[in-house]
Amino acid sequence: MARSRLTPEREGELYAAVLDLLGEVGYEALTMDAVAARTRSSKATLYRQWGSKAELVVKALRHNKPMELGEIDTGSLRGDFRAALRRTDDCEMEKSSALMRGLGQAVHSNPDLLQALRELMIEPELTGLGLMIRRAVDRGEVRPDNPALSYVPHMMIGAFAARELVDGRAVDQAFLTDYAEAVVFPALGV
Amino acid sequence: MARSRLTPEREGELYAAVLDLLGEVGYEALTMDAVAARTRSSKATLYRQWGSKAELVVKALRHNKPMELGEIDTGSLRGDFRAALRRTDDCEMEKSSALMRGLGQAVHSNPDLLQALRELMIEPELTGLGLMIRRAVDRGEVRPDNPALSYVPHMMIGAFAARELVDGRAVDQAFLTDYAEAVVFPALGV
Repeated sequence: MARSRLTPEREGELYAAVLDLLGEVGYEALTMDAVAARTRSSKATLYRQWGSKAELVVKALRHNKPMELGEIDTGSLRGDFRAALRRTDDCEMEKSSALMRGLGQAVHSNPDLLQALRELMIEPELTGLGLMIRRAVDRGEVRPDNPALSYVPHMMIGAFAARELVDGRAVDQAFLTDYAEAVVFPALGV
Repeated sequence: MARSRLTPEREGELYAAVLDLLGEVGYEALTMDAVAARTRSSKATLYRQWGSKAELVVKALRHNKPMELGEIDTGSLRGDFRAALRRTDDCEMEKSSALMRGLGQAVHSNPDLLQALRELMIEPELTGLGLMIRRAVDRGEVRPDNPALSYVPHMMIGAFAARELVDGRAVDQAFLTDYAEAVVFPALGV
């Protein structure tokens, strides 16, 4: 059977409804039935298009970021970082922080969710970040033997995790910009 | 009634038994009854001494670190970092990483555990880290207006969180030493 295609508008509507439901009831209580009812679609369509609840939820989260990190190429590392931050405004960032906190709990009992998060969100972002850093090295902005090169993901993940844990609030563009200027660029010698 | 005192040896035995039990059954299933049975003590003694399961568990975890971060003072920031790392050997670090992962799940449904972790482990470590950094500034090792000064906790938490998430393994002394040399000291201009 031919795989029917949704229009991009319809896909966006479905993703928005999934994120609304996720915020309302959480991952565990979110069912494909509820998504089907909320979006007036059939469960068969949902499973045909996404395969599993985990995939649907992670793709809905990813849909918030209109541009892949790897597609950004402004010509300088600082410019690439700023463009990466501009992908998500503060309001979206706070909403997705709240959703990610909820998923952080759910991954413990849902290995397929952890796998979907890794494959569809974490790995593509890490690959994109790696390309961004690689271009900075190729341009001569960062020395190829700088020991901080392999730790950029660790620095950035620390910004997100510690902002919650130490400061008790979600990251925003101002914080991430300041952190990059204070920590990431100096460590890279930029 | 006078608060009876345990000898340090007996206290150490109790903490070791609590950590064994925690590793075996996890936080949710760990009961004061089980601790009492395992350690041949009475539940009344346990509650008199620790007040709650959350406090007992967190103090047992903290007991692994024989020296408070704030007590370290070697005369240089690099020396202080190394002394802080030497508090826990790699084997202990891996064991406590595994226990902390388990607690990371349990905090979601146990707000008193989160509070005990914050009050008895996270805040004292952050305070100790703050003192260590402050002394480095006073000695002239770090410029007082260095913008990375307020981000040392974020850098360190990133090392722990991302080591699990990106590299899929627990931190050890070699990794933390390399990370400090590659990221923390350069960002601080040391």
